[in-house]
Amino acid sequence: MRTLKLVLAYDGTNYAGWQRQTDRPTIQALVETALTEIEGDCVTVHGAGRTDAGVHALGQVASVRLTHPIGTTALARALNAKLPRDIRVLHAEQVADPFHARFSARAKAYRYRLATSAVENPFDLRYVWRLARAVDLPKMQAAGDLCRGRHDFAAFQTAAGEGGPATTVRTIIELGIGPERPSARLAPTAPVPGQVIVVDVVGDGFLRHMVRTLVGTLVEVGSGRRSVEDVAVALATCRRENAGPTAPASGLFLVRVDYP
Amino acid sequence: MRTLKLVLAYDGTNYAGWQRQTDRPTIQALVETALTEIEGDCVTVHGAGRTDAGVHALGQVASVRLTHPIGTTALARALNAKLPRDIRVLHAEQVADPFHARFSARAKAYRYRLATSAVENPFDLRYVWRLARAVDLPKMQAAGDLCRGRHDFAAFQTAAGEGGPATTVRTIIELGIGPERPSARLAPTAPVPGQVIVVDVVGDGFLRHMVRTLVGTLVEVGSGRRSVEDVAVALATCRRENAGPTAPASGLFLVRVDYP
Repeated sequence: MRTLKLVLAYDGTNYAGWQRQTDRPTIQALVETALTEIEGDCVTVHGAGRTDAGVHALGQVASVRLTHPIGTTALARALNAKLPRDIRVLHAEQVADPFHARFSARAKAYRYRLATSAVENPFDLRYVWRLARAVDLPKMQAAGDLCRGRHDFAAFQTAAGEGGPATTVRTIIELGIGPERPSARLAPTAPVPGQVIVVDVVGDGFLRHMVRTLVGTLVEVGSGRRSVEDVAVALATCRRENAGPTAPASGLFLVRVDYP
Repeated sequence: MRTLKLVLAYDGTNYAGWQRQTDRPTIQALVETALTEIEGDCVTVHGAGRTDAGVHALGQVASVRLTHPIGTTALARALNAKLPRDIRVLHAEQVADPFHARFSARAKAYRYRLATSAVENPFDLRYVWRLARAVDLPKMQAAGDLCRGRHDFAAFQTAAGEGGPATTVRTIIELGIGPERPSARLAPTAPVPGQVIVVDVVGDGFLRHMVRTLVGTLVEVGSGRRSVEDVAVALATCRRENAGPTAPASGLFLVRVDYP
């Protein structure tokens, strides 16, 4: 039995998120179905990040244990032949047995995209949160700076109820805010009214809705509805009502998962 | 009565093209309906390029004559409030009365996007023609060079039957082929497997399906199914069967329309 690591990109628009559900299509379920056909027996796939409904991935990582001897290149090709076109396996490789996409992860990088142009970009509708107004970037960055480091982020989660995480302390390693630069990694599709502000966050782990609540809070700071100090209060009090709203799923991308 | 010039961007995926049809949604029909509501009387909109079903626009130009005194900024905003989100008015301005979006146009620029990466980009499905293999760019460029200049492009049109153009002679002013460079004008949405080859064509006018047939022919040259000399033969003989297939609509963007 081998352990395999898969890197996946997907447009989350049409899916109820990563995690398997009984009644709605999810990315995990589709990948498991495709792998089960290859393996000839039921397989379970573990994802590094359980992206929510509508959240996208540029570099989700999944792990799976297979007995079938298929090569990694053939496996990626076979999966892409079975999966819908908006879910793609970018890479497959064999890894050491203890590897687990979620538990072995050291850090995850997310990007949140905010559209601030007066006219909406018709090619970008599913990939941004469109703000009605411009935002104050230096203020947002000042608030973001407060979030960097090791904190109790209880104010920035959607409480999980039973079975929630043992601790709500997490470390944000990087948090950068600024205009999106066209990059070779990002393919261009769209035209003029293209001003997009990105919030790039790297952390050792994230609570449920944490990135989206951080962004919802930072946008309130950027639009003057909340002060930089309010963010310090939210962090200190650990009370959800002291943070801003959960930003929409459409703007969020799981960019990368790092392993030791 | 004033003459107004509108610049539009649209994702053509969900539309049966620019031109009004009785039974299917088109961009012209939607813009006319929105303008008719503002004017309070029927209006006719003239588009510079009658883009086909599924073809996109970054800078389509339309002209319309209105009696309503609405300002140009308010007009653009009112139209965007009425139009679906995948059709956007980027700009509206008053122009001299003889202006006609189609007949006054001096040149049009189109971009065709070809995806050649082994793995498909899940965020780009509606905006490229995906080729199964790599293409030989220098050969494509050599064939493209033959098309530049003033030629009879009869071999590269889908014959219009009755009511076709009086002449099939057109001038291609520029024809460039190469890797797409991320640019500030193009907003990035998508990830890794992003290798896209673009065919940029500027001409004084285009026959029906001319850009798509040029691209279909160039791709056959690039993939070795047709020689550079075959393109010279197609141009010289004016016979449709000597040119390649019509490339899919999804890869084509009307980028810009130039006026004197």
